[in-house]
Amino acid sequence: MSLYQALKQCGYAADDIASAAIDPAKLYAFLEMHIEQGPVLEAKQCSVGIVTSIAAPTRFKVSIEGRADHSGNTPMDMRKDALTGASELTLGVERITSREAGSRTVGTVGYQYITPGAMNVIPGKVEMGIDIRDVSMADKNKAVAAIIDLMDDISTRRGLDISYQQLCNDEPVALSERIIATLRETADEAALANVLMPSGAGHDAMNMARLTETGMIFIPSINGVSHNIAECSHMEDICTGTDLLLQTVLKLAQES
Amino acid sequence: MSLYQALKQCGYAADDIASAAIDPAKLYAFLEMHIEQGPVLEAKQCSVGIVTSIAAPTRFKVSIEGRADHSGNTPMDMRKDALTGASELTLGVERITSREAGSRTVGTVGYQYITPGAMNVIPGKVEMGIDIRDVSMADKNKAVAAIIDLMDDISTRRGLDISYQQLCNDEPVALSERIIATLRETADEAALANVLMPSGAGHDAMNMARLTETGMIFIPSINGVSHNIAECSHMEDICTGTDLLLQTVLKLAQES
Repeated sequence: MSLYQALKQCGYAADDIASAAIDPAKLYAFLEMHIEQGPVLEAKQCSVGIVTSIAAPTRFKVSIEGRADHSGNTPMDMRKDALTGASELTLGVERITSREAGSRTVGTVGYQYITPGAMNVIPGKVEMGIDIRDVSMADKNKAVAAIIDLMDDISTRRGLDISYQQLCNDEPVALSERIIATLRETADEAALANVLMPSGAGHDAMNMARLTETGMIFIPSINGVSHNIAECSHMEDICTGTDLLLQTVLKLAQES
Repeated sequence: MSLYQALKQCGYAADDIASAAIDPAKLYAFLEMHIEQGPVLEAKQCSVGIVTSIAAPTRFKVSIEGRADHSGNTPMDMRKDALTGASELTLGVERITSREAGSRTVGTVGYQYITPGAMNVIPGKVEMGIDIRDVSMADKNKAVAAIIDLMDDISTRRGLDISYQQLCNDEPVALSERIIATLRETADEAALANVLMPSGAGHDAMNMARLTETGMIFIPSINGVSHNIAECSHMEDICTGTDLLLQTVLKLAQES
């Protein structure tokens, strides 16, 4: 089923989306509250975070091809092991994003599909995903260039065919200085321990920031856990964040 | 269905296996021919290999537990990434078996199961298999000890829980000196380019060697490929090996 068909079936004006859209000129501001999905607020003992910018990902799907061979009869110096190549790349992503790009750069290899994937066979092929994020496009570009160089290096040294597809290369988004100031002032008035911080994750706010002045509130995630079944936040923090959201909306409403 | 039931169904004497077995005292010798499943014969331009000993595996199933977290919002220094730990172990197995144990030692990580395994989640858990083989038990033990030390080291440094289960720890098997000499003499008489070599893979011969004097012939694998759909041997090599097998059987039959 196409998106067009699904919209129609749900009663949306699929044939006239433009006229159904809200005119951005009528928007005064956009505010979003979200769980932090990270450990920073808890570590800093803050009830709320005020988001300054939203990091954007550059993502690669990488394919490493070596040669599947017998794990017993193939001497170490005659192998083309796709998984040892993938392991070197995985540790390289960690090293480059930890120490060789910017202070906010993060990089993750979240999956690897290993073929054929048996105890007694040297892996012939690995497909893996690389996710690199930063609030600075320059620092992110530096990390990306170093990772691409590393792929070339591993390919040459290990005799592996490495190819990659860039899935996205998004620009980080700075949020509104004015809304950040209003959020901070409102938090201080309520005597809330707060901190200015970037968001490593993408949020609706990064799209709304193109249309209107946009701000964002984070509340703590217990143990910083997210993308995990144990993801949770304390009710007290949820109420504190919601109250800051309310007070800030009232303040902005009075301005306009 | 149990093995007992399957044997019965096929008409075997499942209730009286001992009486159906061949008396080892009636065996004079056991010979096996097999494809090399490796690249050595082709590289040395030999038509046959005469196997001196059969390597035996030590295998581990390793479980590495870290913490699944958001790939964007978790700073690099606050992660417990199970896959970077697994990558370090994979490269360690390669390094130790290539350079820090014996000249014949081989080590392979053939599979890794990564959980949850998504682009935007730091891997929380990795299960992986390690296969170490050697014709020298002492060299293999050296490699195994170094790999276990490395698991402890990675666990401490990275704050990961690493546990392992040893699936097997088999003794390498030396084949009969007398059969090896007979095979070599017969190959030389036929002017076959031949080489004495260990087998990295397990074979029926390693079990028969406990019962009687045992020897083994290898023929070349095209491009050394095995455990791969492209596994193949030239008909000429199959015939050469079979002829050596026949001539050696005739010679041994005349001895007895």
